[in-house]
Amino acid sequence: MNRVFNFSAGPSMLPLPVLEKAASELVCYGTSGMSVMEMSHRSPEYEAIIKEAETLLRKLMDIPENYKVLFLQGGASTQFSAVPMNLIGRTGKADYVVTGQFSGKAFKEAQKMGYDVKCAATTKDTGFDHIPVITKDMVRPDASYLHICFNNTIYGTKYHYIPDIGDIPIVADMSSCIISEPVDVKRFGVIYAGAQKNMAPAGLTLVIVRDDLLEYAEKTMPTMLEWKTMAENGSMYNTPPCYAIYMAKLVYEWILGLGGLGVMKEMNEKKAALLYDYLDSQSYYTAPAKKDSRSIMNVTFVTGDADLDKKFAAEASAKGLKNLKGHRSVGGMRASIYNAMPYEGVEKLVEFMADFEKTIPRHKI
Amino acid sequence: MNRVFNFSAGPSMLPLPVLEKAASELVCYGTSGMSVMEMSHRSPEYEAIIKEAETLLRKLMDIPENYKVLFLQGGASTQFSAVPMNLIGRTGKADYVVTGQFSGKAFKEAQKMGYDVKCAATTKDTGFDHIPVITKDMVRPDASYLHICFNNTIYGTKYHYIPDIGDIPIVADMSSCIISEPVDVKRFGVIYAGAQKNMAPAGLTLVIVRDDLLEYAEKTMPTMLEWKTMAENGSMYNTPPCYAIYMAKLVYEWILGLGGLGVMKEMNEKKAALLYDYLDSQSYYTAPAKKDSRSIMNVTFVTGDADLDKKFAAEASAKGLKNLKGHRSVGGMRASIYNAMPYEGVEKLVEFMADFEKTIPRHKI
Repeated sequence: MNRVFNFSAGPSMLPLPVLEKAASELVCYGTSGMSVMEMSHRSPEYEAIIKEAETLLRKLMDIPENYKVLFLQGGASTQFSAVPMNLIGRTGKADYVVTGQFSGKAFKEAQKMGYDVKCAATTKDTGFDHIPVITKDMVRPDASYLHICFNNTIYGTKYHYIPDIGDIPIVADMSSCIISEPVDVKRFGVIYAGAQKNMAPAGLTLVIVRDDLLEYAEKTMPTMLEWKTMAENGSMYNTPPCYAIYMAKLVYEWILGLGGLGVMKEMNEKKAALLYDYLDSQSYYTAPAKKDSRSIMNVTFVTGDADLDKKFAAEASAKGLKNLKGHRSVGGMRASIYNAMPYEGVEKLVEFMADFEKTIPRHKI
Repeated sequence: MNRVFNFSAGPSMLPLPVLEKAASELVCYGTSGMSVMEMSHRSPEYEAIIKEAETLLRKLMDIPENYKVLFLQGGASTQFSAVPMNLIGRTGKADYVVTGQFSGKAFKEAQKMGYDVKCAATTKDTGFDHIPVITKDMVRPDASYLHICFNNTIYGTKYHYIPDIGDIPIVADMSSCIISEPVDVKRFGVIYAGAQKNMAPAGLTLVIVRDDLLEYAEKTMPTMLEWKTMAENGSMYNTPPCYAIYMAKLVYEWILGLGGLGVMKEMNEKKAALLYDYLDSQSYYTAPAKKDSRSIMNVTFVTGDADLDKKFAAEASAKGLKNLKGHRSVGGMRASIYNAMPYEGVEKLVEFMADFEKTIPRHKI
C-alpha cells in the first residue's frame, strides 16, 4: 500500500485511521453479523449509528438545540433549489452574494426557478479574488434570507467574518469548509454542505436549519426537498445514505479524538501558513486570492504560463502529489488541504514547488 | 466473523464476495494510492469506474442504445416528484396504478404537486393482495405516461406481465426487483430504482429513460431533478454518489460472473419456490398475496395472530435469521430474498418455520 497525497478539491482525502476502521468492519460490523451497508435503516443497530452521528456533530460544532440537523442526499446543488423552495415564502424575495462559481450557480438556480432574487454584491469584476464586506444596507430589508458561499473552492477565498445583517437569516453553503474550524452556528439561519470534502464520501449532504425557518416551504414542492418533512422524520422520510452517514460518524470521532474543531483549526492554519508563507516569499508563483480573503482549505496559485502550469501538475502527480490542477474554469493550480491532508503532504508540496522553480526556469518552457 | 441471514426489505444483503472485495481495496484502490471514496469524480480512475458500471449494466439488462442510464441520488421517493416534473409536460396529465404503499405515495406526490393525475386502477379494496390486469382502455388516451410499481415490497406482489397500452410510455418503479431477472427494457419509457435492495448500498438511484422522453421537463423545475441535464452530463452535473456506484459495479460484475440475469432469475425462482411450496403445504402460516401475483423478491406470510408473529420474528432473529418482521403498516412476516440471499438462507428459514410450527402450537400463545 503506497498512499499518495491527494490535493483534490472533492471528493478528497479521508483520514487514514477512518478508512482503516471502515475497511476492518466493512464485512461485519461489531456483533451485527452484517455490513453497515446491509443494515435496515430502521434497525436498532443503524438507528444507533445515525443518532450517534448527530450527537457527535452537535458536540463538534456546538449546534444549539433550536437547530435541526438533517442528513440528506443530492449534494449542495440540490440545496440550490431547496433553499428558495423552503425559505422564500417568508417574504417572497431573497438576496445572494456571488463570490465564485457555486454561489453564482445558487443564484442562477433561484432565478431559473422564477423567484424574485437579487444579487446583493459580487466580486466578478476582479476575478472573484476576494470576499466583499457585506453590510446591512446592501441587503433588501424584506429579503427572506441572504445566501452566501462561506468558502469558495475554485477561487481559494473564504469569509473571515460573518456579515451582520440584523434579523435577516444568513444561508451559508459551507461545502468546502464545514468542520474545518469552529463556527458560530447561531449567527446563521441555515448551514448546508456537501460532505465530500471534509466529512464523508460523496452522496451525503448536511443541512443545519434553525427550527423557526421550517414553516415557509411551498405547498407544491417535492416532498423530498422539504426540510420540515426530513426534520420530522429524523432524516428518514425515505432510506438515507446510510453508509456515508456512518463514514461521517467515523470522521467526527476522529476530529473529537484530536481535540475538536479548535485543534482542527490550528492544524489547518499551520498547513495553510506553510504554503502561503512560501508563496509570499518568492515570485515564481502568484497567489491570485487577496490576502484578507485567503481560504485555509483551498490554496490557488499560478505560474502565469498555462504550459508551465500543466507541466507542474504532471510532474507533481508523478511524485505522488495528486490533483493539483486548478478547476477547468480558471486553470492554474489548486491545493486543497482539507482536514485529512497531513502536514507532511503540504511540506512535500512546498519542497516540490521550490525544486520545480529551480529546475524549470520560466524561459525554458 | 459470523454472518447472519438478513431478510431485510432494504437496505439488505450484499453478495459476500462483493463486500470482501470492497473491504480489500477500501484503503487503496489498485495502484491509485487512494480509496475510491477519495477520488475526484473527474479523475481518469473514477471515470473508468462509472463508465464501466454503465457498460456492465447495459450488458446485464440489455439496455437499448436509445435509453440513457443515470446514476442519481435521492432514492425512488425523489423520483416520485421528478417523474411528473420531467414527463407530464408531454400532454399535461398522467395515470397511476396503485398496488401498494409506494405506488400510492408516487400518486399522492404528483397530486400534492398539483398535477392532473388519475388513478387508473387500484387493488386497495382487497388489501393490495394482487396485481390487476391493466388494459389500454383503463388509461386515458392522452396520458403522458402510466406509472406502475413493478414489485411491491410491502405486500409481496409483482407484475408477471407488462401492460400493453400502445404508445403511452410506462414508467416503472423497479426498486425491489431491479436486476433480479431479465426485463424487456424497450417496453418501458422509464425504469427507476433505489439501489439499496438488489444493487448497492443506499444512496444511489438508477434511472433508465428513453431519450425521446427527455424533452418535456418543466422550465422552472430543480435542475438536479432534470433527467436531461443529468443525461447530458453523464450523471456528473454535480458530484455523483461515487462509492455507491463503485459498489454497484462490483455487484454487476458478480451477477455477470454467475451467468447474467437469466441465471439470477433461476436462482431467485428456486429460492422463492422453496418458500412458497412450504407455505402452500401447510396451514399454520398464510401467504396473503394471490398466487398469480407473487413476488420472488419479497415473500409475505402471517400466522393470523399478532403475538405469535412477534414471537416468530424474535426467535428467528435469535437463530441468525434477521429482519423477518413485516412492514409496520401491515404486520406479519416478510422474507426479502434478494439476489444476495443464498439458497441456504431460505432453507434455514423453512426449517425454522417448520420447527416453530411444531414447538409453538397456536393455542399455547
